Order: sequence, then C-alpha cells, then structure tokens
Amino acid sequence: MNRQQLGLASSMPGEGLIFGADYNPEQWPKASWPTDVALMKEAGINLVTVGVFSWAQLEPEEGQWNFAWLDEVLDLLHAGGIRVSLATPTASPPPWLGKLYPQTLPTDASGHTLWYGSRNQFNPSSPKYRAAAATITAKIAERYAQHPALAMWHVGNELGQISFDDESACAFREWLMGKYVTLERLNDAWGTTFWSQQYSTWEEILPPRSAPYIGNPGQELDFKRFTSDQLVSLFQAERDIITRYDTTHPITTNMMGFFSGLDYNSLARETDFVANDWYTDPGDPQSWQLGALTHDLCRGLSGGKPWLLMESATSAVNWRGHNVAKEPGALQVDALSAVARGADGVCFFQFRQSSFGAERFHSAVVPLAGSKSRVFREAAALGAYMAQLGALAGTPSQTRIAILFDWSSWWAAESAARPSEKLQVMEQLLAYYRPLLRHGLSVEVVHPDTDLDRFDLVLLPNLFLLGKPAATALKRYVSNGGHMVVGPFSAVANEEAKLATGRFPGALAEVLGVSGEEWLPLDKPVPLVFTSPSTGTQLQDIHASIWSEDLELHGPNTRTLAYFGAGRLAGKPAITANPWGAGEAWYVGADLPAEALETLVMSAVAAAGIQVPVPLGLPDDIEAVERGDQLFLLNHGPTLSSVELPGTFGTSTTITLPPYGAKVLSQKKNRVYS
Amino acid sequence: MNRQQLGLASSMPGEGLIFGADYNPEQWPKASWPTDVALMKEAGINLVTVGVFSWAQLEPEEGQWNFAWLDEVLDLLHAGGIRVSLATPTASPPPWLGKLYPQTLPTDASGHTLWYGSRNQFNPSSPKYRAAAATITAKIAERYAQHPALAMWHVGNELGQISFDDESACAFREWLMGKYVTLERLNDAWGTTFWSQQYSTWEEILPPRSAPYIGNPGQELDFKRFTSDQLVSLFQAERDIITRYDTTHPITTNMMGFFSGLDYNSLARETDFVANDWYTDPGDPQSWQLGALTHDLCRGLSGGKPWLLMESATSAVNWRGHNVAKEPGALQVDALSAVARGADGVCFFQFRQSSFGAERFHSAVVPLAGSKSRVFREAAALGAYMAQLGALAGTPSQTRIAILFDWSSWWAAESAARPSEKLQVMEQLLAYYRPLLRHGLSVEVVHPDTDLDRFDLVLLPNLFLLGKPAATALKRYVSNGGHMVVGPFSAVANEEAKLATGRFPGALAEVLGVSGEEWLPLDKPVPLVFTSPSTGTQLQDIHASIWSEDLELHGPNTRTLAYFGAGRLAGKPAITANPWGAGEAWYVGADLPAEALETLVMSAVAAAGIQVPVPLGLPDDIEAVERGDQLFLLNHGPTLSSVELPGTFGTSTTITLPPYGAKVLSQKKNRVYS
Amino acid sequence: MNRQQLGLASSMPGEGLIFGADYNPEQWPKASWPTDVALMKEAGINLVTVGVFSWAQLEPEEGQWNFAWLDEVLDLLHAGGIRVSLATPTASPPPWLGKLYPQTLPTDASGHTLWYGSRNQFNPSSPKYRAAAATITAKIAERYAQHPALAMWHVGNELGQISFDDESACAFREWLMGKYVTLERLNDAWGTTFWSQQYSTWEEILPPRSAPYIGNPGQELDFKRFTSDQLVSLFQAERDIITRYDTTHPITTNMMGFFSGLDYNSLARETDFVANDWYTDPGDPQSWQLGALTHDLCRGLSGGKPWLLMESATSAVNWRGHNVAKEPGALQVDALSAVARGADGVCFFQFRQSSFGAERFHSAVVPLAGSKSRVFREAAALGAYMAQLGALAGTPSQTRIAILFDWSSWWAAESAARPSEKLQVMEQLLAYYRPLLRHGLSVEVVHPDTDLDRFDLVLLPNLFLLGKPAATALKRYVSNGGHMVVGPFSAVANEEAKLATGRFPGALAEVLGVSGEEWLPLDKPVPLVFTSPSTGTQLQDIHASIWSEDLELHGPNTRTLAYFGAGRLAGKPAITANPWGAGEAWYVGADLPAEALETLVMSAVAAAGIQVPVPLGLPDDIEAVERGDQLFLLNHGPTLSSVELPGTFGTSTTITLPPYGAKVLSQKKNRVYS
Repeated sequence: MNRQQLGLASSMPGEGLIFGADYNPEQWPKASWPTDVALMKEAGINLVTVGVFSWAQLEPEEGQWNFAWLDEVLDLLHAGGIRVSLATPTASPPPWLGKLYPQTLPTDASGHTLWYGSRNQFNPSSPKYRAAAATITAKIAERYAQHPALAMWHVGNELGQISFDDESACAFREWLMGKYVTLERLNDAWGTTFWSQQYSTWEEILPPRSAPYIGNPGQELDFKRFTSDQLVSLFQAERDIITRYDTTHPITTNMMGFFSGLDYNSLARETDFVANDWYTDPGDPQSWQLGALTHDLCRGLSGGKPWLLMESATSAVNWRGHNVAKEPGALQVDALSAVARGADGVCFFQFRQSSFGAERFHSAVVPLAGSKSRVFREAAALGAYMAQLGALAGTPSQTRIAILFDWSSWWAAESAARPSEKLQVMEQLLAYYRPLLRHGLSVEVVHPDTDLDRFDLVLLPNLFLLGKPAATALKRYVSNGGHMVVGPFSAVANEEAKLATGRFPGALAEVLGVSGEEWLPLDKPVPLVFTSPSTGTQLQDIHASIWSEDLELHGPNTRTLAYFGAGRLAGKPAITANPWGAGEAWYVGADLPAEALETLVMSAVAAAGIQVPVPLGLPDDIEAVERGDQLFLLNHGPTLSSVELPGTFGTSTTITLPPYGAKVLSQKKNRVYS
Repeated sequence: MNRQQLGLASSMPGEGLIFGADYNPEQWPKASWPTDVALMKEAGINLVTVGVFSWAQLEPEEGQWNFAWLDEVLDLLHAGGIRVSLATPTASPPPWLGKLYPQTLPTDASGHTLWYGSRNQFNPSSPKYRAAAATITAKIAERYAQHPALAMWHVGNELGQISFDDESACAFREWLMGKYVTLERLNDAWGTTFWSQQYSTWEEILPPRSAPYIGNPGQELDFKRFTSDQLVSLFQAERDIITRYDTTHPITTNMMGFFSGLDYNSLARETDFVANDWYTDPGDPQSWQLGALTHDLCRGLSGGKPWLLMESATSAVNWRGHNVAKEPGALQVDALSAVARGADGVCFFQFRQSSFGAERFHSAVVPLAGSKSRVFREAAALGAYMAQLGALAGTPSQTRIAILFDWSSWWAAESAARPSEKLQVMEQLLAYYRPLLRHGLSVEVVHPDTDLDRFDLVLLPNLFLLGKPAATALKRYVSNGGHMVVGPFSAVANEEAKLATGRFPGALAEVLGVSGEEWLPLDKPVPLVFTSPSTGTQLQDIHASIWSEDLELHGPNTRTLAYFGAGRLAGKPAITANPWGAGEAWYVGADLPAEALETLVMSAVAAAGIQVPVPLGLPDDIEAVERGDQLFLLNHGPTLSSVELPGTFGTSTTITLPPYGAKVLSQKKNRVYS
Repeated sequence: MNRQQLGLASSMPGEGLIFGADYNPEQWPKASWPTDVALMKEAGINLVTVGVFSWAQLEPEEGQWNFAWLDEVLDLLHAGGIRVSLATPTASPPPWLGKLYPQTLPTDASGHTLWYGSRNQFNPSSPKYRAAAATITAKIAERYAQHPALAMWHVGNELGQISFDDESACAFREWLMGKYVTLERLNDAWGTTFWSQQYSTWEEILPPRSAPYIGNPGQELDFKRFTSDQLVSLFQAERDIITRYDTTHPITTNMMGFFSGLDYNSLARETDFVANDWYTDPGDPQSWQLGALTHDLCRGLSGGKPWLLMESATSAVNWRGHNVAKEPGALQVDALSAVARGADGVCFFQFRQSSFGAERFHSAVVPLAGSKSRVFREAAALGAYMAQLGALAGTPSQTRIAILFDWSSWWAAESAARPSEKLQVMEQLLAYYRPLLRHGLSVEVVHPDTDLDRFDLVLLPNLFLLGKPAATALKRYVSNGGHMVVGPFSAVANEEAKLATGRFPGALAEVLGVSGEEWLPLDKPVPLVFTSPSTGTQLQDIHASIWSEDLELHGPNTRTLAYFGAGRLAGKPAITANPWGAGEAWYVGADLPAEALETLVMSAVAAAGIQVPVPLGLPDDIEAVERGDQLFLLNHGPTLSSVELPGTFGTSTTITLPPYGAKVLSQKKNRVYS
C-alpha cells in the first residue's frame, strides 16, 4: 500500500510504443526457443509476457522449485533485446493445490465444486490459496527483480473468479462487518424486513446461494462488491510482495473491458498503469464500436493517461461458437484503433499458436502454419509501423466529453425482478456513444465520482444507481456551466440499491426540471414527435420500442424537445431540456432509435460549444480519432470508403480508405478540437 | 379437523364487499403508520392483510418474541376502522431457522439445497420446520384471537414448496404406506416390473430424484400428490392450532389459480372460504381470458359460493421479464371481472410500494411516487365504487355449465414421454372455455367427482386421467339427460396413470359411441370438413394442427359431425355426437381451431337448452357476466367497442364501452339465464 | 477372450430371416402368456428377446433368486416354437442395489448422483456393480445354457453410461497407467504445460469434472475412450462368464447406431455378430436416410457380414417431444431397408405395449388396442413376407465404396473451443453419403484402420483425427490405384488430438497436392465456381455457407475443380483433384451444398470405375438397394413415385411405387454392380 504510485508516462516500460505478445516457451522444446526470439525480432516485437501459466512448471510439487528453465528463457530474451513483462502465475494453480487443499477450489451458487483441469480454479477467499499465491509471488519477485530483461510485472491474469463456499461466506461476513459495523445497519441497508430476512447473528449471513425465488437485491449487490474487492485485494497482495523486492518496475494486471465481475475503477487505482484485453469479433460488423468504447473506458480508468492493450488476437479466437478470422488488414486496423485511443502499445495473445490445450485453435503471431503465412507477415508489418509511430508514446488523451459508468450501478440495474430485462445497461451505453463515434468525437468513460470540471458534456445513459454526493456534484457541475444528458431509468436508486421515494429521477429531478411517477415498459412501439433543434425538421418514423416514462415538466424554463405521439402518454414529454444555472440538462424518458439519439446528443454537443471534427458524420465502418498531432482514419469494413474532412484537417479534404485500410495523417498545429 | 365448516356467506368478514391490500408496516418507520391508515381510508380500504412476512420481526431469535409493534399496528388499524386479515408468517422462516436447522431447507431433485435469502425456503416434510411453524402460529393465535380488529386468518402464503431430501423421502414412504398398505400394491400401482424397478423394502423408496433417463410415471404422480397433501396438511395444522384459540373468524389461505404444485380441490375443502391471487399480464391482450377462467375455477372450488381475490396488482408486477403496466382503467376492469365472477372482495399486493427487497418494482396502492398519482387515484375510485356494489356481497354463482378439471389428471397428462408435448392441458382448457366466454356464458371449473346434476352441460377438454367412479357418474349423468363434450386424449388412464387397454377412450367409449386405436400426433396440419349444425354451412379452411386420432363409430346412432379431409384419416370421424339415454355426448378426436370449437361447443349449449346471453358473440376484448341482478360489461382492450345485447337486457340494446371501460347494468327481474 | 469367434453366417440363430420382438412377460399376468405365444405365431415371429429388464424379478433381494417364472416363460415359448434371445438383465439394477451400495450409482460431471427409479443407474467402474452383474449373469447362464428355446445371448441393453465419481477416477487412472506407463508421457500427451495443468502424482488425475472454463482436450478425449473401454469391458466380462457355460450360442448386445458414448468399432470386435437398434423418426422426412447410413455402419462394423436389427418401432415412439406415428406401410418399408442393407432379421421393441412405466406410449406389435388393429395386421403381413425372403439369410454385403468414420475422431472434432460449432461431423457424414444413396450405391462405414483394398473409393468427410499409420495406409491405397475424397477440416490432429504443425491437412497434404494455412469459418455465404467434370456446365448459384479454407496447390499435377467466386479467397481453390500413383485424391476446402457434393462425389465414383445403378438419380423419398439377387425399391414418402431403371434391372424399366410402398425384384444374374 505504501508503494509509490508512479506516473504512467514514466512507468510504461521502454521507449516508443510497445509491440508484444504472450510467450509461453514451456509449451515448446528448448531447441526452438532461439528461433522464437529470432522471429520476435523479425516481427518487431519488443516486449513479451512470460510466465502467466507457469505455476506448475515452477513449483511442480508443493515447495519444490524449478526456475532453471525460466532463467534460461529470460536470459535468451535479454540477449535478443526483447524486454519481459513477467507474470505471477497465480491465475491457474497446479492440480496438486486442488488435490491437497480442496478448499482452494471455488464453488458455484448451487454448491458445485469447480475442479482443476481448466484454469481459474481458485477461491479468492481461500487463505490457503492466498498463502500459496503469496509464496510463489515472493519467490519470483526475489529471483527476477534485478533481471535485466525485466520491464514490468503482470499480476495474475484476467482476475475474475467467484465462489459461494463457506470460506467465502466467512470473508463476506468480515467484509460486511467492516462496512456496516453493526448488524442493525446491515439489516437496514439490505431491507431485511422484506420477506422476513432479518439476520439475528452475523453467522447466519451467506453469499446469495441458490434459493427458491428472487434474491435480496442488497445482498446480491454487496456480494458483487465484496467479490470485486476480494479480487482487487488479490492484486494488492501480490503487488505489495513484489514491491518488497522491486520499487522500480511498474506493476499492473490485464483487465477485460466491460467485464461485469470486477469494478475496474477500484482495480485501476491500484495499478501503475491500465492494461486491458480486447478481442474484436470479426463475425460482428459492429464489434469495433464496442472496441472503441472499451478503449475509451481504458482512458477513463487511467485518468486520460496512456494505457496498454495487453491482449488481442491476430486473427480468429477459439472461444466463440463460430470463430470468424480477421480479414486481411483488420489486424492492423484493430491495433491502430487502440493506439489512436490512447494505447501506448499493442500485444497479442499469443506469440506461437499451441498445438494442444484448450486454446489450440486461437490465432497467434506465429500460426501453426509457421512464419511464412499471411498472419505473420501482417503482424510483422504492423510491428514495423508501430516503430514509426513511436513518437506518440506518452501522449495523453484530451477529450471534453465524459460518459458516466459505474460497476455498482450496472450490477444494481440488472438485478432480477426489475421493470424490464429488455432495457440493458450496455446497450444504452453503446447507443449514447455511437453518435459521438460517428462524428469523430472521443470520450472518456468515467466513474460518477470523477471530477467533471475538465469536461464540457457528460452523458448518463441508464445510470441506475446514483449516490447523493455524485448527484450533488452533478447539480453543481451543470450550475457551473456544464452540460448533462440523462438517459432513461437513471438515478433510480441510492448506493444501497434502495429506490428513491417520491417522483423520479429523485436526486436529479430538480436540475432536470422534469419528474415522473411511473416507468412504463412498452408492449409495442410508440411514435415519437421530435423536431430537430438544429434543422427545424421533424424526424420521420421514429419510435420508442421498449421503454417509456410518464413525465411532467416542473421547471419554469423546462422545454419539451420530443413528445409521445400516441398511446397513453400521447402529448407527454419524452425528451426535455432544462437550463440550470450556467449550464443545461437534458432528460430522456424513453429508449430512443439511433436517429433520435444522434439528434439529441449532437444538440447537446453543440450547446456545450464542442467543435465537431466530422460534422456530416462518418460513413459506416469508418473510425476517425485524433491523438496528439496524428489523425487516425480506420476502415473496419469490407468496402472502399471515402471520408470528407473539413479543410482544417490538412490540404486533402477527401480521404479514400481501402477495405480494412488505415491512414494516419499528421495534422497542422491548429487542431480542430482539443 | 373438528372445526365447524362455516358457510361462506356468514364467514366472509365484514359487510358489503371487501376492498383491501397487503400491509407490511414493518418495512416503514412507525411514524408513517398513521398516514398509512389515513390513506387506506381515503382509498376506501376496509381490510388489510398483516403479518405475512413478519416471522423474523416477531421471533428475531429462536424463542424470543417481539409482538409490541404488531400490537400497535393492529390497534392503530382498529382505531382507523380497518379490519385485519391476520397472517401466520410461516411462508418465510427467518435465517436463524435455516442456520440452526439446515434440515428445514428444501432440496431440489438434483440434491441442491435452496437457501434462505429469498422466501419459501422451507421443507414441507421437515418436523423441525413444522414444529417452529406451529409454535409461532399458536403464539399469534393466542395473542390476537380476541383482537377487535381481527376479521379473518390468512395461513401462510401461496403454499407451494417441494423437496426431495431424506426427510421428504421418509414422509413420502409414510404417505405411501397409508395409501398402499403393502409393498406389493405399491409395486403393482407403479408398474415396477417395467425396467426392473421393483422395490423389496419400503426403505428403498425415494422421491423421483435426478435419474439417468425417463422416470416412473406412477412414482412421479404419487410424489406430486404427496407433496400436495403435505402442503394441505401444513394448512390444516395451522388452522387447527388457530381453532384452539378462535372458533369465530374464518380461516383461509391464498391460492394461485392454475398453480400446478398443489391440488386446490383438496385445499379448498379445508378452508372456510376460497381466496385466490390473480395477476393479469398487461403485456398479453388475452390474459384477461385466463383471468376469467381462473375466477371460474374459484367458483368451482367454492361450490358456487363467493370467494375473495386476495392478491392482485394495481399496475405492473416485477417478476415477469418485461413488466408492462396496466393501462388507465384496467385496474378497475380487472377488479370488476373478479367481482362479476363471484368475488366478494378485491385486494391488492401491496398497500405501499417497497423501496427495497425483491419486489420493490411491484406496483401498489400507494406507489413510490406517493398518493398524488394516477394509480392511487384509480384505486381510490375503485374503492368508492366497490362500496356502491356492496349489495352484491353473498350473491352466489348460478351457472349451468361445468368444465371438469383435475390436478392429478393435469400432472399425469403432462408427464414425460407422452405422445406429444404440444398437446397442453391448459391450452385445451382455455380453447374449450373461450366460446363460452365469447357468448357471455359463465362456468364453474370443477373436479370430476363433483355432483353434476346442477349442470346441463359438462366439458372435458383433455381430461387424461379418469377414475372408474367418475366415468360411471358421467355415463349416468348423460343417460339422465346431461350433455357432455369430451376433448381429445381424455379418459386415457386410470387413477394410477395406467393406460386403459383396448380401444380408447376406454371408460367413456360406450357413452360416446366411438372409439379409437391409435393417437396420431400430426407433423403438418390436416383439413377438417365440418358443416355447422346450426347454419348448415361448411366451415372454411379449418385444420387440425398437432393432434388427430384414428376413430371408428360403433354406436347405433352415433353421427359424424366433422371428418378429416385428407391424409391417412381422410373421411374418418374427427368430431362425433351420440345420443345416450336422455342426453347426448360429443367426442373430439383432434385439436380444433377456434372457429370449429365455437361451432361445436355452441351446438352443445343449444342442445342442452341453455339460453345464450350474447348469441352473436362479443367483440374481442369484451367480457359480459351476470351476477345476481347486475350485468357487468367490461372492456379489456384499448379501443372503444359496442356490444349488441338482446332486448331482455333492459331498454338499451347497444352499449358502448370506452377503452378499458366498465358498465354495470341493473337488470330486470326476467333474467336471461340463471 | 478365449471364446472362439464364430463366423456370423453360422452363428446367427435359426434359419431364414429372423422376425422378432422384445417380450417382457413379467409385465403381464401369467394367464395371458399363452395368448401372447399364439399372437407371436400369428405374426410370424420366430425369436423374442426375454429378460432385458428382469433383474428385480430374478433377484428381488440380494442373493434371493426366483427363476420359476422365467423357466415357465421359456418352456412356453419353446413349446410354441418361438426361439429365445436371452438377455442378461444388467442394464437396470434393482433399487436394492443402489440403496445398499450407493457407490454403484453414477455421478454426473457436476457431482450429482443419478438415482434409481428410471434405468441405467449403474456406474460402469463400480467393482460392486460389476460383481453383482457377474453373479446374476453366471446364474442365468448356468441355468439356461442348455434350454432348448435358447437361440442367442443378449448382453445388457444399449450399453452407455458415464460416471465422474471417485471410483471412476480410480479406474480412469489405472486405464491411463496402462496407456501411458509414466506420468511424463501422460503430461506430454495431454499438453499439460498449457494453463499450468501438469500432474505431479497419478492421484491428482480426475475425470473432466465441472471446471471454471474450457477443459483439456486430451483429458476429455481420453475420458471418452476410457468410458467406452469400460463399457466394452462390461460386455466382455458377461460374455466370458456365459462362455463358461455355453460355447454354442452366439453372444451379442444391441448397439445404437451413431451413439456418441461408445466406440462401436471396439465393441463389434467382441461380439459374435452385430446387432443394432434403429428408430426412424416419422416426423422427419429425411430420417430414413440416416437409417440407411446407420445400416451401412452396421455392415461396416460387421465387416460386410449380415447383422441384426435388434430393436425398431412398429409405429410411434414415446421419447421424442412430438411422436408422429408411422404411416401405413412405413413399418414394412423401414424393415426392408434394413434387410436390403444386410440385416438378417428385424425385431421390434416391444411385443406387447405396456400400460404402465416410462414407455407406455411406445408402439408395439400388439398395441393397447389389441391385435385387431392396423399395427398388428401390418406387423403380421411383414412377418409373412420376411418368411418369403428367407433365402436372403446369410448373403453378405458387397460394396466397393467406404466412408471412413472413427469415434475418437468424432469426439475430438466436436470438443469445445474449436473453429466452428456449425461444422458438425454427422452433418458432413450425411452430406457425403446422400449422393451415393441417391444413385443406389451402397457403402460400408468403416474405421480408418480397416484394410481398404476391397474398396475402389473411400470418402473421409471431416475426419478430424488421423493417426500416422492410417495416413500412411491411405497414401499407399491411393498410390496403388485407390480413389479418395477428403472433406474439410480433416487430418487436423493426431491420435492425441494434438494439431499437426505446418500447413494442413498435415499427413495428407502430399497425396492431395494441396495445403492450407488458415481455416476460415464464414460469416456469410460465399459463391463457388464449379464446372461439372462430366457435363462441362457450371453449377448455378452454389455457395459455401459456413466454412472455407485458404488453400494453395503444390502438386505438379494438382487441378482446381472449383474455386471461390468472391471474398478474400476469390480465385483460390475450393475443390482440388490430384493424380497420385495409380490413383487419385480429391480435397474439399469448404462446406458444399448438395448439388456440388453430388457432382464431386459422382465424379469420383466415375473415376473409380464404379458402375452406377441409377445414373439419373432416384426421386426424393425413394431408396434402391441390391442384396444378393434381390433389388429392393422402397418408397419412404407419401406420394406415388416412379423409378426409371436401366434395362439391366429386368424387363421393366419403370417401376411405380405407391406411398410407403415396397417392391423387391429378383434380378438376372448379370448384376449391375458387385
């Protein structure tokens, strides 16, 4: 905990951009290792992650250690000029741990043990697992802290495990005692007067195991928070051990974007820089949009500083039902999207494709077919290009728009027995993000508690749970001249997932100038009447499809921007705007189609005085992002496409991109936005 | 058991109609209780159910009692003139019970424990659970039997739990010993010579737990019967304890309509009056039809006497995937449908919407938004109207048509490995009910063992299981002038779910004058040729879709009303009619489309001499029901609709109903039917 | 093991063709048994299987024996001239075994016990189960080996059970020790360096139980092989016991065609002749095609010798969701399809329909309706016809075409986390089989290790796993003049399911003259350009739908027969042909539509010099097969159909078949093919 939090720019390993891969030499005969290093250099790789799944190789039996092979690997890499991201191998304990200490195995909500034979079979609350992980972490840190190949530490892998067993119950109780101190407060927070759930002793409290009917939302939310905290504490424990031996190299772990099992806002704070895994789905033409949003989440998690794309695929993955491969060019385009959005490096899982194991059909830098292959050629070309882009390293993000996102809110919003399972947090998030993406506007996805002063516009799409401090800050933010767009079913509950009484959205009703009395999930689409504030023309044939709210204006200056055109709410407001202090606040009481959302969001952008890089919008499949002085134009689709750019983007105003093609333009000093 | 079964008219609490709600004051601060009582009065509420989920409040630790708050609540309600339906809180034991006595927790068929943290986590066969439930029931009965607010007792809540654990196995064996006396008889009844399932000792017998393949249908049927009997005996046990302290107030429990887990014919016999929960699905335009059928089941369960709608929703519920709210007006229309079909009262779950717990998104009389809301206004308007209709209280049902329905038959009909899973008992039940509904004819849904003499027409839609006594009674019924319509796949099995040998439908083949040798589920629709007996014209474009039977006439006067128009059965009978003694019996060897069923059922209605209130049929969404001298006309749909009524219905022959509108007409003495 | 393997022709019981049924007299009163025997004779039945599920009747308590009833049944059958297939009743142990010895019950991968109350509740690795099964087998063999009614032994029933419990883990370890000898070899074979799965002691090894993520493919494959071997060893154990008492009568067990749980190539070797169960699905018009393929598998399993259709249905079954009955005539047509494809007999499950138990809705020779029924009449007519066809008995199969199929390959191909779950082994198998079926060409489905010299053409549709010896043999086979068609995603892995490194299809790339570097599952259909080698015209509007491969020719004479018409592979080969030595080899790098597969396969047939019985192809629903001098023409559809036959098929060249009609033509000596 007393480790000095290093600034990212200084802590990212190496100079220039990182280009790397996971390297698992234990899967291959020693004789092939020199070839691997040679191929790394050929591909332009300057960093490899080693040891992620090496526990059984390093400690084949309890307390028996075998580091010789890893010494050799690190020496070899160092000799070849390849720097090392050294992992603690704690994501996959060896079979002997589960055999000797079954309590280290996780248990699901129905009581089934999850066995070894795959990976991740650890119980985050098991003291024995934690002790074994601490031991091997210390051994590795001690041995390699001074190794010249070492560039950074990679703790565990994609932290994310949950267990409902008795040891987890114990740890959960301790966590709850820390949070609530008295049982009375816990009973109050969880609302245990409902359904006779009141606890009379701490010992009665359990994880939310299988039950006959709907669970307690407070208990479920706290168990998710607890599990997240347990995972963060696994990271902290290993980080602190490493710090005992090494205060020089940065320490991080690889996140998984919008992974629901861990609150990355908590985890990011503990890391020296943010590292993330992202796998575009080549079978889904819109997958790159979620990728862009995920990269913008990374920016938000790192406070605008550069981050690292720790894992990605050169071509197909193996874990989807139908694994489409990347089209030629897509490898480069996917990587550049991350760089454009603040990544100081791009790494692949993995360097050499396995011929066995659960991921043998996962693509790699060196595929089964060898280095004389399209995939290797494209990876090497990208490596060369990354070297050219090296000057970008360290360039921070400069965005004026934030989307508020909170894991607790996500968990609470999607608890069982809510008004509608059709209203999905991630879908709303993407829907509010797409208009910005289509106009070349970048975003940081940040926690509601973030200081919002550096943003001119904040969006809250379906931010279900909103604490009082955050609500107060938002009011002040708008009052001080900020602009805020609030999506449906937001500010519904407080930190304990208790619903605000009175009209919704309780804590934000005043600043929005509007409030409602009933959420009305729709059984059929309802027309919306929405006249575009910018063009003055009415949008044609637009509907709310799944969600509406029964709203009434109450602010003296609140305006109705759109209203329902039929049904029980005919004539009632669907979208409102309210000037408040020096700023303005919009509320949306419906799910909106893309066209309506674009009109609304771009109105707010205009009101916030944010200049729009691509006023007419980008063609489908095209991404445009600025980083520093570079403008990245990326074609994520299979057709040749032309982009019209304002004159400020250099001399050429029409840029043509081949299918899966990329252009990176160096811009004049007069930046279009910053 | 020695409790005097009170007649319902005298035992229903209060005078006039009941208008009420579940009231859970333990969820709210004491300071708000007086406001609650004031709002109850404002809404016209005269009865509230208290204490359903109060076990943990009343007995926070084993043997520690806290009744002060409930004393206060009851006194407050009494002072406000609100009568109380007092619940035993045994549906949801406190966590300490499950913690101290894990054997009280239920176990599913695969051996998973279902834990506390929700509700209903009790094992109906656990002696410890039963003892704990008995203790708190006695405490409550002793304390409140004389309380002036007390109007009735509400035992448990929606009884329905199942467990496959060892204690349940013990209790199952005892139940089986009582039923079969010898193991030989059990082996014979279950047909254990099949697949080498013969039991050599009682101890071998288990609930039908997870097994490698299809289970034994006899065992499965008996386990459902046993579970149902266990739940009934939970009711009996609490009722008998209450009776020790109170022989004045009626005792009941809330059923759930066509809930498959409990034979309500058994349970209804043990209650002082029938109380039922019904939740219209506002997202399903036909949901009100199942509601009407459910209300008609309640009439049947109570032998034609009034019953109570114990739970319903003012607007949306929370437990569907997508919870559409009720349209304005629907609250009233739904309530009046129950009153029209014999309910002497309508109650809502719940009075005040929770801000926490699993049902916080369930609507209430007082929503989160407070009493200045559409929902509260509509509830209060209904309350006022219910008071106006008070004279209806006690008016019994007078119907001449019965539908035979039997939980055992339902269970047996939908056992695994049957001819077709597409033939569903509930779908057939609704299909045969809809023509009656459309013509304003009301029905009682009764058990096959019911005395049928008061009915002129009985329908058996897919009554799979039919015992010999019931079959004999049906024959006598027809012979004496009764009319009977038998749907497909009826009278297939006896009480032990053994198939009748010989041609089907074994026990009814003679009276029907037709029999078959093979059930023929269809892989594609087959045309039917059916000339309407009343109009003489042939129905156009009608088909059997999923089911046909290979039938042959054998009665001397049996007529073919419809035959198959193509396929292997081309020219063979699909619908037959057979005069038998003074009556007539119809058989249907196919699944019929709505038009064909209407033609058939209305022919039988005509043959039975039943006058039809709405000969031309009602428009979609419109319900018309008589109760006493009142004619209820209800519009369950979103469009204005006009109903043509014969002159006998007063001076006006065309009644116009607004969307979700209701009209209750006082009729002349010359009733149209009775 | 020392039992003399009898030749099938001599070991099949009786003379002429077998016509039989399962007979379970214990389900019926003794008084009805003589009627049963009379009805058997009326139906032409000459063999009944007795005792399959009689364990509880024979040993009602542990060690207590009751054979009197079975003595009587066998005497009665013998007196009536009905021969007996006597079963060991070990498929369904009595409840007492599970009660007294819970370790005999199987456990699923999540740890759930599967209880008695159904059937098959045995753990194949339980020593106690094995001992109990051995005891009753010895008792039965000793008692009935000399009974004059005895014709053959029927061991167990549809062997197929799996268990993941601790006893299975023990047995699995022993099996692995036998296979790998050292732990090092096991670790190497399973690739346990991946994900830190290395085992340090044998005791750590478990069946592939529920785990947090994707399992180890090597472990999963070996566990399937182990389970299969355990089931085979159950057969062997009972067979060897019987042999102690009887070396005269043949011993077999009933297989289930393409059942994935047991490698029938292993099992078939242990039986005296192949017996199989096949249930046409009357609700699926193409079900007969899978039936034909299954029968051709039986031919392959028996090395071309006759086999026995041990179970089939007279009409509907009960275990599908919607059980369509057989159309009139289909009973005969289905039976003759088996006879035409080498069956020396046809038996039904079961003789008399049960009125209780899990299969009471399964059709039988004598249905519930009795013998005056369509089904009985049709069965009896078939019985009479089978007697007429008696001379066919013993006639072996003579086919020149083989399809290679291997259970291990199937298991490995459909392991988790592969390129696409849409590419299914059974679908590809059927797709490559259908062109042959449509042209009256019969096939043997054989293991890749089979000596292929007697075949002129072999097909490998999606043969994922191919060992080195088999690959070598295939090369030699082609070199020596054989013809080979290899489907997509074949020869991908070796016996350990390790992927071949380098370009695919590794071991076959040389002989095919083509190789690839990336499998490319498709996200949308891609056009194929394919000019028919025989007609010279281009196939219209054909596409690969789910699968493509990035191929390159490298043989000097390799030709592209078809290429991709668009997309990333535009212009690249999709189907290739390569002359190799005296033979030729085709490769297909895509999933092909029916028309393209027909063109390809029939080209290969032509190249192999195989004369085609029906050059223009058969109409839909029509099957044409030769056996000996008989030509079977079978109409599996509901429409009258005419078949054009070449002059060589007798004088008549146009044969008309009524719906579900059959014609068996005696042919001239000059056979069209053989």
